[in-house]
Amino acid sequence: MKNAFLPMIAVMVAAAVPAFSQTQQAPNDAKAAKHKVVFQLNAPKPSGWDQIFHNVENVQKIFAADGVQVEIVFFGQGLTMLLKKNDEYAERLKEAADKGVIIAACQNTMRAMKVTTADLFPFATQVDSGVAELVRKQEAGWVYIKGGE
Amino acid sequence: MKNAFLPMIAVMVAAAVPAFSQTQQAPNDAKAAKHKVVFQLNAPKPSGWDQIFHNVENVQKIFAADGVQVEIVFFGQGLTMLLKKNDEYAERLKEAADKGVIIAACQNTMRAMKVTTADLFPFATQVDSGVAELVRKQEAGWVYIKGGE
Amino acid sequence: MKNAFLPMIAVMVAAAVPAFSQTQQAPNDAKAAKHKVVFQLNAPKPSGWDQIFHNVENVQKIFAADGVQVEIVFFGQGLTMLLKKNDEYAERLKEAADKGVIIAACQNTMRAMKVTTADLFPFATQVDSGVAELVRKQEAGWVYIKGGE
Repeated sequence: MKNAFLPMIAVMVAAAVPAFSQTQQAPNDAKAAKHKVVFQLNAPKPSGWDQIFHNVENVQKIFAADGVQVEIVFFGQGLTMLLKKNDEYAERLKEAADKGVIIAACQNTMRAMKVTTADLFPFATQVDSGVAELVRKQEAGWVYIKGGE
Repeated sequence: MKNAFLPMIAVMVAAAVPAFSQTQQAPNDAKAAKHKVVFQLNAPKPSGWDQIFHNVENVQKIFAADGVQVEIVFFGQGLTMLLKKNDEYAERLKEAADKGVIIAACQNTMRAMKVTTADLFPFATQVDSGVAELVRKQEAGWVYIKGGE
Repeated sequence: MKNAFLPMIAVMVAAAVPAFSQTQQAPNDAKAAKHKVVFQLNAPKPSGWDQIFHNVENVQKIFAADGVQVEIVFFGQGLTMLLKKNDEYAERLKEAADKGVIIAACQNTMRAMKVTTADLFPFATQVDSGVAELVRKQEAGWVYIKGGE
């Protein structure tokens, strides 16, 4: 019985996590996912910006049966994709977030660019450092893919 | 005795694998190779296009004694390197394929670019998704290197 | 007692290693570090050249308590950052090296660009092949990050 309910509880817990929580705390369902993939996006527009959505969709589709958890870490010029004023990507980012993709903004880049939480799409989570996040995730067994061309 | 003959058998098996087989099925010698390296090439020409041949040759030369298996996954703008009409790279790609490098074309990119198997060099293999292939290979213990600059 | 002195000895040994030694031999303190991160820099100026210093500093700061070892592998156009005549980056590179970051120049690129040891900053170490070095480090459990945009 315990095993049968665990995934359901994990999903409920994940759904209950507020949008602004640190990614370190959030994906309780990541443990259940067989495939875990973290993407780096630090490239300026348009290098790989459209492609990353295809990449994420393909990964989600192909590994759907096994369970898959995806995170995109935005830093450097890549962070600008998450600015509210960047409405060209708003819909696709929202759609990805709705499908469980963790959209992680680097707080170091935010400070350097004088970007505040209010400037970012509300579904963006924040991490202390984009690169440190990539290190942590890889150390935790996530597969790493560099987005951008 | 068994150990002495194993590498020879691996080479024979690899040579017998037809050029168009899926990479998932192909590299029977990959298990014998101590080093396994998968390169990502999604950059448009000329970013890293010449460099990747040097990279692959260096890896093959330096790890030759231990055994090494190399795959290059082409997707996005990188796929255009594999188009038959791109004769500038034909010889070097053929040479790499002849030396056992798996040349993998992303079928998602092929569809998006309306590229057919007939448009590609005959030594190119195909994978359902370039990114999914990079995930699978890393999960199977392959080292990942992002080509392009 | 033994455990208390080991880190101190490791630091002393690392400090005693001459600047030109191969990175394979050098970082005796890497085993003690909980986090090991290797960066690839093969991008031409200015792609990610400033960013990589921020990346390294963030990683060093965030993982300081656990111990962290960082190496940057320079090859292709990235190698030109290490040329003595490139005084724009001299100070930041020296500072990184002084803080224990391994600055590794690819000898294959050096030959291709007719760059000699005398042309490089004195704190640069050398590796036979930048890509082979990235392979070795990943095989040894280092986390890999692609620098550049």
